[in-house]
Amino acid sequence: MNHGYKEPGLLRQAAREGRFKDATAGHAPGYLQGNLMIVPKAHAYDFLLFCQRNPKSCPLIEVLNPGQLEPGSAPGSNIATDIPGYRVYRNGELAQERDEVGSIWQDDFVSFVIGCSFSFEAAMLEAGIALRHVTLGRNVSMYRTNITCTPAGIFSGEMVVSMRPIKSSDVAKAVEISARFPIAHGIPVHIGNPKTIGIRDLAQPEYGDAVDILDDEVPMFWACGVTPQWVAQKSRLPFCITHAPGKMFVTDLKG
Amino acid sequence: MNHGYKEPGLLRQAAREGRFKDATAGHAPGYLQGNLMIVPKAHAYDFLLFCQRNPKSCPLIEVLNPGQLEPGSAPGSNIATDIPGYRVYRNGELAQERDEVGSIWQDDFVSFVIGCSFSFEAAMLEAGIALRHVTLGRNVSMYRTNITCTPAGIFSGEMVVSMRPIKSSDVAKAVEISARFPIAHGIPVHIGNPKTIGIRDLAQPEYGDAVDILDDEVPMFWACGVTPQWVAQKSRLPFCITHAPGKMFVTDLKG
Repeated sequence: MNHGYKEPGLLRQAAREGRFKDATAGHAPGYLQGNLMIVPKAHAYDFLLFCQRNPKSCPLIEVLNPGQLEPGSAPGSNIATDIPGYRVYRNGELAQERDEVGSIWQDDFVSFVIGCSFSFEAAMLEAGIALRHVTLGRNVSMYRTNITCTPAGIFSGEMVVSMRPIKSSDVAKAVEISARFPIAHGIPVHIGNPKTIGIRDLAQPEYGDAVDILDDEVPMFWACGVTPQWVAQKSRLPFCITHAPGKMFVTDLKG
Repeated sequence: MNHGYKEPGLLRQAAREGRFKDATAGHAPGYLQGNLMIVPKAHAYDFLLFCQRNPKSCPLIEVLNPGQLEPGSAPGSNIATDIPGYRVYRNGELAQERDEVGSIWQDDFVSFVIGCSFSFEAAMLEAGIALRHVTLGRNVSMYRTNITCTPAGIFSGEMVVSMRPIKSSDVAKAVEISARFPIAHGIPVHIGNPKTIGIRDLAQPEYGDAVDILDDEVPMFWACGVTPQWVAQKSRLPFCITHAPGKMFVTDLKG
């Protein structure tokens, strides 16, 4: 896996040109990475309200104007082409995986850029906390939970979380570091017992890749920006476009 | 002035029954107080986006569903009657001051409850920082500035700030305390020179009451939840209802 992208602009360019299609964890360390949710203007109020009511899952970096392609968080970029992978959902079903969505763009599309926990990983690595998915070059493990989000209009459903196995001696430090990144989901929503939040088998994540959990490690769970995808499915949202889980929009903002 | 209301519910009841029509600073210490902005559903997306883009001026405590009267932040209360004073704006002009708005209520009214700097005053008083408007039983001084808000749809205009004269030896402490209350506008937007932010005369606030500034004091300026009222005027918004400046919705939430 190429961990060579230090500059967000180079990663976005590679994604745009189809040369980079991987998960973005470990790349462009220190820069804010964002989840994407695009809905037609008709559902934008409900989704914006959903974000306001569920700030742990959906901390907003930016909301673009209807039809706008260039985010303020990354001048010169294109939200419809610069992510390594997109998903199209129709009526609550995953309809298509795409490399770009510029060719199906509509003037009433409203893009929401939502903070991502990858943004605090650089600080953790610097503090000497090992992150297995980064070491192995895998996507982070993500799971659906039984934690109910606060509904807003058409949107209702449960929280999706990302999981990182952390050495028990580093758990407190990992909480402290993530607390400094509220826009990247902040402190964990749960530590320790996956069953309590409705996760049956850590070896079978609903999104991303599984990783081993060693004897001296504790699974830590952070709210995840894939939550809107699951909520869109549960709510049978007529139409939305998202990033592919783990493949983020990398902004020019420092975390 | 009656500083006797320790319980938010008793203050709200007195406001509802027309027995209390004063500014709410100094009352119900330790509880979150909220500014109010009510817009018809047709303008709710633009205003919610304005809040998202201007979190210093408009930190959201809660957004009610269309037509909803009972806020989650104060169960049993009524947003249309429990504030000591309301204002109705039409086409950007102040059209009416009212004691209640229940009698003109419509099913498409969306209420936004926005954090207020009164919420950190109890912590300042406890830390030994004197607040002149509280001591004198006056409304806080509020001013229009030249600080441009980030526009959203129909909404554009400048920030309104509240001002407190603070002893120069207490200025740092006042910053530190307000930093702990991001939902109450957080740290000041400006300290010291009113002209820099477009305020010509501290003795003539656009909202609230003037107070003296002594020789050993520095004027400190915090973003203010009256900003939406000025922005609604500048934007010639067809219709909105707000609280009367200084007369807040007092929630049951601890600050």
